[in-house]
Amino acid sequence: MQSLELITDYYEFSMVYALYKKGKHNDVGYYDVFVRTIPDEGGYYIFNGLHKIIDYINNYHINEAQLKYLQETGNFDDDFIDYLRHLKLKLSIYSIKEGTPVFANEPVFTVIGSLVEAQLIESFILQAINYSSLVATKASRMVQVDPERNYLEFGTRRAHGHDASVEGARAAYIAGFAGTACTEAGLKYGVPVMGTMAHSFIQMYESEYDAFMDFAQIHPNNSVFLVDTYNTLKSGVPNAIKVAQDYLIPHGYKLKAIRLDSGDLAYLSKQARKQLDAAGMHDTQIVVSNSLDEHTITDLLLQEAPIDTFGVGERLITSKSHPVMGGVYKVVALMDKNNNVIPTIKLSETIEKVTNPGFKRLYRFYDKNTHKAMADLIALHNETIDPHEYEIFSPTEPWKRKLLQNYTIEELQVPIFTNGKLVYEIPSLDDVRKYHKEQMETLWDEVTRLRKPHKYYVDLSQELFDLKNQLVEEKRAQGKNR
Amino acid sequence: MQSLELITDYYEFSMVYALYKKGKHNDVGYYDVFVRTIPDEGGYYIFNGLHKIIDYINNYHINEAQLKYLQETGNFDDDFIDYLRHLKLKLSIYSIKEGTPVFANEPVFTVIGSLVEAQLIESFILQAINYSSLVATKASRMVQVDPERNYLEFGTRRAHGHDASVEGARAAYIAGFAGTACTEAGLKYGVPVMGTMAHSFIQMYESEYDAFMDFAQIHPNNSVFLVDTYNTLKSGVPNAIKVAQDYLIPHGYKLKAIRLDSGDLAYLSKQARKQLDAAGMHDTQIVVSNSLDEHTITDLLLQEAPIDTFGVGERLITSKSHPVMGGVYKVVALMDKNNNVIPTIKLSETIEKVTNPGFKRLYRFYDKNTHKAMADLIALHNETIDPHEYEIFSPTEPWKRKLLQNYTIEELQVPIFTNGKLVYEIPSLDDVRKYHKEQMETLWDEVTRLRKPHKYYVDLSQELFDLKNQLVEEKRAQGKNR
Repeated sequence: MQSLELITDYYEFSMVYALYKKGKHNDVGYYDVFVRTIPDEGGYYIFNGLHKIIDYINNYHINEAQLKYLQETGNFDDDFIDYLRHLKLKLSIYSIKEGTPVFANEPVFTVIGSLVEAQLIESFILQAINYSSLVATKASRMVQVDPERNYLEFGTRRAHGHDASVEGARAAYIAGFAGTACTEAGLKYGVPVMGTMAHSFIQMYESEYDAFMDFAQIHPNNSVFLVDTYNTLKSGVPNAIKVAQDYLIPHGYKLKAIRLDSGDLAYLSKQARKQLDAAGMHDTQIVVSNSLDEHTITDLLLQEAPIDTFGVGERLITSKSHPVMGGVYKVVALMDKNNNVIPTIKLSETIEKVTNPGFKRLYRFYDKNTHKAMADLIALHNETIDPHEYEIFSPTEPWKRKLLQNYTIEELQVPIFTNGKLVYEIPSLDDVRKYHKEQMETLWDEVTRLRKPHKYYVDLSQELFDLKNQLVEEKRAQGKNR
Repeated sequence: MQSLELITDYYEFSMVYALYKKGKHNDVGYYDVFVRTIPDEGGYYIFNGLHKIIDYINNYHINEAQLKYLQETGNFDDDFIDYLRHLKLKLSIYSIKEGTPVFANEPVFTVIGSLVEAQLIESFILQAINYSSLVATKASRMVQVDPERNYLEFGTRRAHGHDASVEGARAAYIAGFAGTACTEAGLKYGVPVMGTMAHSFIQMYESEYDAFMDFAQIHPNNSVFLVDTYNTLKSGVPNAIKVAQDYLIPHGYKLKAIRLDSGDLAYLSKQARKQLDAAGMHDTQIVVSNSLDEHTITDLLLQEAPIDTFGVGERLITSKSHPVMGGVYKVVALMDKNNNVIPTIKLSETIEKVTNPGFKRLYRFYDKNTHKAMADLIALHNETIDPHEYEIFSPTEPWKRKLLQNYTIEELQVPIFTNGKLVYEIPSLDDVRKYHKEQMETLWDEVTRLRKPHKYYVDLSQELFDLKNQLVEEKRAQGKNR
């Protein structure tokens, strides 16, 4: 287990030191994580990264090498270093489950505890959620184009470091990918791994036929031949068919698939399919790769390209068209000396960017007949929600109202840690994947559409809405006086 | 030390297994790494990542847990697993030095050795070079806007995983950034770390003044106040000045800086500067952050914003506008039974994408008078280059020729490993940073320009050019016959 406690912005230590020296380190705060903007102007994003955070919190301990380094930075006294040496996280944490489709501005992760602890984990929490959710979301967009096709993650060489390659492969699997080329993701997480040959393998041989033949003899059950090294239709596909006929079929095997990695994938896949079918090899599948993303996949399928499997590299592992998930971590309440929860707020130029104050709960309403998600509601923690009828309204255009009826309600955040103790039963990776698939089926197609999706309702309860407006007024008044 | 041997595409193992079973595993190949397209249509990129590769090669050993996992994938026999168990890397490796500005299509890293070893390290090598070079390049573009300003790396929370945050901080430092917020980058690499406060710190207090005062008392030498929590010019800057006057200055300290994190940074920095100057605090610096990149920095400086330090987050650590460095690793020659080096080539639709065959050297010509780089030349390994006069020509437009005279020549790749033994003296991080700065001074401004830079000459020797064309013809003929 690598020590990750210093994967932390240094200002967290500077702030925490000031709090400690001023005796405020045991003060309690409430922090929410939320995302203001969904990548690629999408209609939803997939929450992910909780597994990494659970590991991090469970193993949190600032070791001697880390303490020594912190001391050497020259800003902290021995007393504080010793305080860090004995610091144990006693936080209470609530979170959305991994694989859940969620929406902008709703609290997906909530931390309650001492200001010191809550600040020290901020940077890592955000990094874990931001990257894992980013790739899960991108992968989900690809899978949603046609969930019946196969998708493979091929991005290791373009990933932003080794951690990204492994976490990205896991994220893709959750979102419905069938597997990855990243071997470590198999060892660490049990993601199915796969892969057969690169162009270099063909180049090691005098002829393409010889390369395929050697590979077929050694991997008769795993014969996926890369056919574009010299000329896809004149050399690659004919040689693949010939090796199947000369060796695989007579020995009771079949040519599993061919892979196209360049050229016009719609044209080439159609022509290759014809050649394979003409040879009676209807079972041989076609895998394609080469700078694919959700839009190219859409266009290839619109043109009825007979592609069975899409291998996706750099545009998934870096979320190339939108490589930033902008999750933020904001203090939303403080506990006063009498253990009252005092909501706090951060102002901004626009009302949409003002944080939602207070300790809250996030609910999702499902239609009892269709089982589709109707709306999400953010309410204060102590509110009760009428189980039969509820009027929601837009927080930015409050005159837009809708009466919900005939629903079931689910609370989306579940307890993960209570006073430092893990209380959450961690699901298996395959359970997360299955859960994600079920969850996606609760969304209307209008919400999952790639371009200009319908904006799903994420509304505030009347009580929260009123509290927010009241705090905005108070802070504005204070801002002018100070 | 984390085990990174399985940060490898699974197809490497599949290919290597076929080579092993067919008795080709001791065959020797020559592989080049090069980048076809420079991010952001830039005129150069910064080579980086070698330090990570040296660590990886030095520690390469497939451990029992990794072997067990590979065996469980079901595609390999016990004999091969045992072969991997005892595999030691005996590769010879040449590389450009970290921090060198380089150009598209030139070989920056060359591997010579058994096909097995060369294939097994491919994915990791590419990942290390691609990400580290990507961020160094992006950082260099920012620093080149005005190398006299200060730049800080603030991207940890948006980095693609923990490895990215640390390597990205190191890359930024090499390229001229003054430091990072990523604490682990300080511990691991000695990058200077810095940071004082977030909005949450201000929000923990009843008033902004109280927050600044507490911080000033605890960190009197490190007083950088974030001034935009409520109202930058009406509240933040006046409170910062007041705390300086009430506490810092009377106690012999000064207000080190204020930080602006929202709003129009040109307008706010000018107004803040006026307020600070009016209070006699000419030494207090202005730090800005908020979605900065090289273009926003350019525009702010064009508008004469009095900014001392730029804090750059997500747009650097993810290279947001272009998050992929497309480094590739291609076999360029094979050794035959008689130890002759046989060049090999990979065809493509366009001549620019056809690989440069053979074992090669990369030279840079410097003008003796100006010390500026004039051109790079890729030549075969055994060629000698005339030290007085050399005619270069464009490989795509060979009628464009230029006679170089009055130059010094430097060979850019240096030996790193020789038959598995490290022969390179690893420079300190500060030496790499200094070397990068010196190297940047050898480039004409026309080449480093952000938009539409001059295309630096990267040419082939006549001998290499002829060899390439000859192989293209041969392969085309073969492709038709097979």
